[in-house]
Amino acid sequence: MQQFTLINGAPASAVSVLDRGLLYGQGLFETVRVVKGYAPLWSLHLARLVKGMQALGLHSGHDAGLAQVQIETEFLQLLNRPPFCSVDATVRITVTGGEGPRGYRPPAEIAPTRIIQWFARHFVRPDNVIVALCNTRLMPTMFGGLKHCNRLEQIAAAAELGADVFEGLVADSQGNLVEATSANLVCVINDQLVTPPVESCGVAGVMREWLLANVPALTIAPVSVGALETMQAAALVNSNYGVLPIHSVNLRGRAVAFGQHDLMQALVQHASGVFDAKEQS
Amino acid sequence: MQQFTLINGAPASAVSVLDRGLLYGQGLFETVRVVKGYAPLWSLHLARLVKGMQALGLHSGHDAGLAQVQIETEFLQLLNRPPFCSVDATVRITVTGGEGPRGYRPPAEIAPTRIIQWFARHFVRPDNVIVALCNTRLMPTMFGGLKHCNRLEQIAAAAELGADVFEGLVADSQGNLVEATSANLVCVINDQLVTPPVESCGVAGVMREWLLANVPALTIAPVSVGALETMQAAALVNSNYGVLPIHSVNLRGRAVAFGQHDLMQALVQHASGVFDAKEQS
Repeated sequence: MQQFTLINGAPASAVSVLDRGLLYGQGLFETVRVVKGYAPLWSLHLARLVKGMQALGLHSGHDAGLAQVQIETEFLQLLNRPPFCSVDATVRITVTGGEGPRGYRPPAEIAPTRIIQWFARHFVRPDNVIVALCNTRLMPTMFGGLKHCNRLEQIAAAAELGADVFEGLVADSQGNLVEATSANLVCVINDQLVTPPVESCGVAGVMREWLLANVPALTIAPVSVGALETMQAAALVNSNYGVLPIHSVNLRGRAVAFGQHDLMQALVQHASGVFDAKEQS
Repeated sequence: MQQFTLINGAPASAVSVLDRGLLYGQGLFETVRVVKGYAPLWSLHLARLVKGMQALGLHSGHDAGLAQVQIETEFLQLLNRPPFCSVDATVRITVTGGEGPRGYRPPAEIAPTRIIQWFARHFVRPDNVIVALCNTRLMPTMFGGLKHCNRLEQIAAAAELGADVFEGLVADSQGNLVEATSANLVCVINDQLVTPPVESCGVAGVMREWLLANVPALTIAPVSVGALETMQAAALVNSNYGVLPIHSVNLRGRAVAFGQHDLMQALVQHASGVFDAKEQS
């Protein structure tokens, strides 16, 4: 099987045309890597999703927590079922504002739509990860850090990329790097392991969060676009491929190669353990 | 009939769970008032939609213009059919990035999804239009002016409103008014008819555009939040209800009433003619 979708707990392939996720982008998502029925970073995914639901007003009063329980139950039951329990997968979980009357004003009772999309995993780790600096700049929003469904900027940045480029790096309007279009960024600068802040206009990825909690050497610090010229090493970080060192960056047509660095190699090693299949408790 | 939907030309009520409109908010919409099968501002709606499709990359190379022709054909054919030709309606037209593989990067060939949602019109012009100043501020984006489907800010602003309030006014981060959550704003200040600029973070509404093109006295000028205390008159403006004078604004618990003004009354009169049913050519 290549893909399979549950909507509100039932197999389905389409969403109501009255759904506020479709109409207004009122939704959140998580992209979860699953190793043989086990989702290593699940607790971080669920915590971010719940935080986002509060920020986007997807908790209706007396149902607070119900959608969270339903999502977790449906997701874990799916992973335990053949054939899903034995295949590596990428699962996208989307929660939207559900159906409502026309207009921005949320209905008095919100019934979020829960979408669980299971995709067989086909990720091939590239030999040389080449990235490009995008011209698209991320702008600050009141929903910074969340993985919401308003992603026009990321699409515009990704649309700049040629086929030979694996990912695009994106800066903010001040000229500081924020992240890649679908991954966070970790760099070695002056023998320090740093990742840029993302609260204003990026996504606080769960792999980045796991690294910040488990690798004391990694700290949050601003990284200017100019630092790409001199940084010692850099890597893309997300829950799909862990820590993926960058070989070189295309800076408006000019290639700048990164090196290897002990701190980055240790980080790769540390992170790879996360995705070793484990017995689920 | 209360509502009816065409998706890519066929009656339907659901959209693929792989649609980029649902997954990433990659879409645009128009809300079109229809008077007995006639859409008075149609040419402005279509022009804005096409402009937005170019900005969002929804024109794939050799199909440029095809989606536009399909939308116009499907919309006008629908309006000509019983019972739609004889009922006042509000029609939402949505165009999304269509289905694609996972990830922000657009597919090489984009096949936009065309959604035409027909709703019977139930608008009752309120006696006294009361608005409130929202705490939510609009942030600048690279897609300012367009009516795209990334509307988390508008939802947050609308969620602030009590049931007694008809609409919310929203300012930018500099403290200048931009618009209402789903309408533009026209004010009389110092006996001048002005509307705030919307290119940075608002929506350039088609009714506002029509007024700017047809009413020489109306000009674009910044309007500070503070000006609410002293402005002579104000109105909400959109393609659904034309020009709707505001009775009073709730400024953090304190009501400030607006007056009547000859300039605003002339504007209401001028705009009402737009929606008189006409023979379709």
